[in-house]
Amino acid sequence: MLSRRAFLSMAAASALAPPALSERATGQAGRTRVEGAIDAARLRNRLERLSYHGRPSAGGFGDGVSWVAYSVADLTARAWLIDEMKQAEIAPRIDAAGNIYARFGGQPNQPAILFGSHIDSVPNGGNFDGDLGTFAALEVIQAVQAAKIQTRHPLEMVLWAHEESTAFGIGTAASRIVAGDLKPGDMDKVWNGMRRSDAIRRIAGDPDKIETAVRGKGAWHSYIELHIEQGGTLDKAKVPIGIVEGIVAIHRYDVVIEGFANHAGTTPMAERQDAFVAASQLTLAVRDIATSRQGRQVGTVGRIEVEPNSPNVIPGRVTMSVEFRDLSEQTLRELGEAVKARGASIATSTRTTMTFTLASTNPSAPATKGVQDAIGQSADALGLKTMRLPSGAGHDAQQIAALCPMGMIFVPSIGGISHSPRELTTWEDCARGANVLLGAVLQLDGRDSI
Amino acid sequence: MLSRRAFLSMAAASALAPPALSERATGQAGRTRVEGAIDAARLRNRLERLSYHGRPSAGGFGDGVSWVAYSVADLTARAWLIDEMKQAEIAPRIDAAGNIYARFGGQPNQPAILFGSHIDSVPNGGNFDGDLGTFAALEVIQAVQAAKIQTRHPLEMVLWAHEESTAFGIGTAASRIVAGDLKPGDMDKVWNGMRRSDAIRRIAGDPDKIETAVRGKGAWHSYIELHIEQGGTLDKAKVPIGIVEGIVAIHRYDVVIEGFANHAGTTPMAERQDAFVAASQLTLAVRDIATSRQGRQVGTVGRIEVEPNSPNVIPGRVTMSVEFRDLSEQTLRELGEAVKARGASIATSTRTTMTFTLASTNPSAPATKGVQDAIGQSADALGLKTMRLPSGAGHDAQQIAALCPMGMIFVPSIGGISHSPRELTTWEDCARGANVLLGAVLQLDGRDSI
Repeated sequence: MLSRRAFLSMAAASALAPPALSERATGQAGRTRVEGAIDAARLRNRLERLSYHGRPSAGGFGDGVSWVAYSVADLTARAWLIDEMKQAEIAPRIDAAGNIYARFGGQPNQPAILFGSHIDSVPNGGNFDGDLGTFAALEVIQAVQAAKIQTRHPLEMVLWAHEESTAFGIGTAASRIVAGDLKPGDMDKVWNGMRRSDAIRRIAGDPDKIETAVRGKGAWHSYIELHIEQGGTLDKAKVPIGIVEGIVAIHRYDVVIEGFANHAGTTPMAERQDAFVAASQLTLAVRDIATSRQGRQVGTVGRIEVEPNSPNVIPGRVTMSVEFRDLSEQTLRELGEAVKARGASIATSTRTTMTFTLASTNPSAPATKGVQDAIGQSADALGLKTMRLPSGAGHDAQQIAALCPMGMIFVPSIGGISHSPRELTTWEDCARGANVLLGAVLQLDGRDSI
Repeated sequence: MLSRRAFLSMAAASALAPPALSERATGQAGRTRVEGAIDAARLRNRLERLSYHGRPSAGGFGDGVSWVAYSVADLTARAWLIDEMKQAEIAPRIDAAGNIYARFGGQPNQPAILFGSHIDSVPNGGNFDGDLGTFAALEVIQAVQAAKIQTRHPLEMVLWAHEESTAFGIGTAASRIVAGDLKPGDMDKVWNGMRRSDAIRRIAGDPDKIETAVRGKGAWHSYIELHIEQGGTLDKAKVPIGIVEGIVAIHRYDVVIEGFANHAGTTPMAERQDAFVAASQLTLAVRDIATSRQGRQVGTVGRIEVEPNSPNVIPGRVTMSVEFRDLSEQTLRELGEAVKARGASIATSTRTTMTFTLASTNPSAPATKGVQDAIGQSADALGLKTMRLPSGAGHDAQQIAALCPMGMIFVPSIGGISHSPRELTTWEDCARGANVLLGAVLQLDGRDSI
């Protein structure tokens, strides 16, 4: 049996000579198997096989996936992951929210170190968002298992059941439950003709005992999530490893604009109460407001519904989303006030009414300094350059930050493209991220307090 | 048997003392039956009964109707009209396009005077658009029948099967066929999961013999259509009868904007290619262009589809309609060029691509002077003030203008509201319009050439 120190240096050596994994969608390179560290070839192979479950029928790897949470593709992909875990003699456990956990090793009186991600996607999404972190977690356990390392803390991998906000309009929904965000009626929401309780039953959860999925503060020693950056910062800087400083807060408004639907041929321009003209002005105002101050804040109008949506009828009603993101919640409040003020003046000039509802708020979640440091040390040991940066995307880590020390590892997204079939991370960077995750988990295992 | 002259003066007298029809949705006034002219009470009663077929289940008259062409409500409403015709001993005939015709009287060697309208509606439309002209046509025949007038020309009423552009994206679709606009493949279009040939079969048309619905130039002596104005000109001017000078031309563009769908949290503002920001700018440009010159031209963006339409994804693709209307086709061409030029500059600044396709053009159709005069004389005989105005809306009359002299009568739309459940015309104005239609038909009957 190897010592942790010997193992870490072996892992570092293997990452310093990364296997040739840059060819996309070609056969397996023979020399990608490196004893004692992450099995980069197997990781790639699993990500490629996973992609079958949600890709277009005529597509190949890289054509994107659509496995929205609770879809058939989500169910079969989960079943396949469970099968892979069982093949590796790692016993999965599904909690009442449908999250899949598996523990390995450690001393029974110690809290586990948790790591993992999700696999559900946005419609027509990419092949790396969530998938990489989930399968890298399985690799970490298999690497430790293969090297016969005995850790002090149990190692626990997790697949969060439902992360993207497509299903039920709720993001990080399953980890949110684990963190205790559970209100009466939550299970009764209906989306896509499906009650949330039935959706959770589909993935072998138990909505009648949903509260058993809630975990308390200190449930874990720490949590680390490896994820693609989904932005272009690392790719531009040519830095393979990002150490996340924190996850931005999100304020999302639902805006309803009421104008008056009237005939597009007979209503003079001056007499119109065109809800879509108002919506267009508001959209440009959101962009103005987000760009008119220093900082990394972003503002997006992503969803728009127009009624009656007919070429010959002046739009009478528009519902639209307005979303702002920043690390500072104070900034978000100011952006929200600014857009409401602009909305009021647009409503007056277009003779429409505009109603803003703060539909959801995700608090910002700073990453724990000790976990950031463990990630940094792991990367240093592997000779990999790092960079600290915020996460503009929401992640399950944001929820779990309420329960234990949290950190995230980012790897580069080529061109910053994500939530798109063109989302791409090189196989080398996938392997580097997984090796840094492995090293960071072992670093954390050596610490009593973080 | 009355002479035409005696009948006309009787009709005039009855219209000068219009029955009390202004109460909305109340019971039938006993004194609305006037022998020898339009039966205003029956007209109202039929419009109210017709409304059952397409109104919301919990609604009453005035809550609007949704009987999009070929819908179940359209089928039952058509069946009910046919039943009313048969009760009145007027034999209906359905042509291959599904138009319902019925002829009455006249000398066999004379071309018929045609009058009528449609009953299909936009989704969530009003109770008068089309319906008034259709049921007024039935009243005209019944009035002539009851008065035992013998006209020289056969009188022919028509219900055009599919006028609104909701179904298959084609407006005045059934009268368009009659006017000979029929291309290979037209019957194979699919909308709402239904082939157009199957849709036409649903309403007892015969798509396999669709060419038999086409009529040649001179098929009729003349055509008159009574319709609500759908704009606010008559209502504002307090003039009960509008004499339409012509129907505006329509140029409709389909615009496709391609940006790049990316994560709304991780993509900095400066790096976005937001198709909906471009669409918003184009929408405001359409408004600017339509209002920046003298004239009555209008420009509308009524239909917008955003992909992927998720709050947390930057819109990657937008398809939208841009429609311009004016009596002058030259003006429309200039407006089209202007919007394409603005589009090109918006595309550059937003780093998107914009493709304009001229999806449909409706030519302008001037109303025949002789028919306008007949309408004017009919209104004068009834002591009703008139006003000449263009029609900003498309109408079946626009298609039939290619086959014979054409004219249209407008009655006021309160507040100019149309294509809305709040569409409203007083019962007095409905009766006035029907009486003017009756008088104009009889005026035209006395003319050899128009």
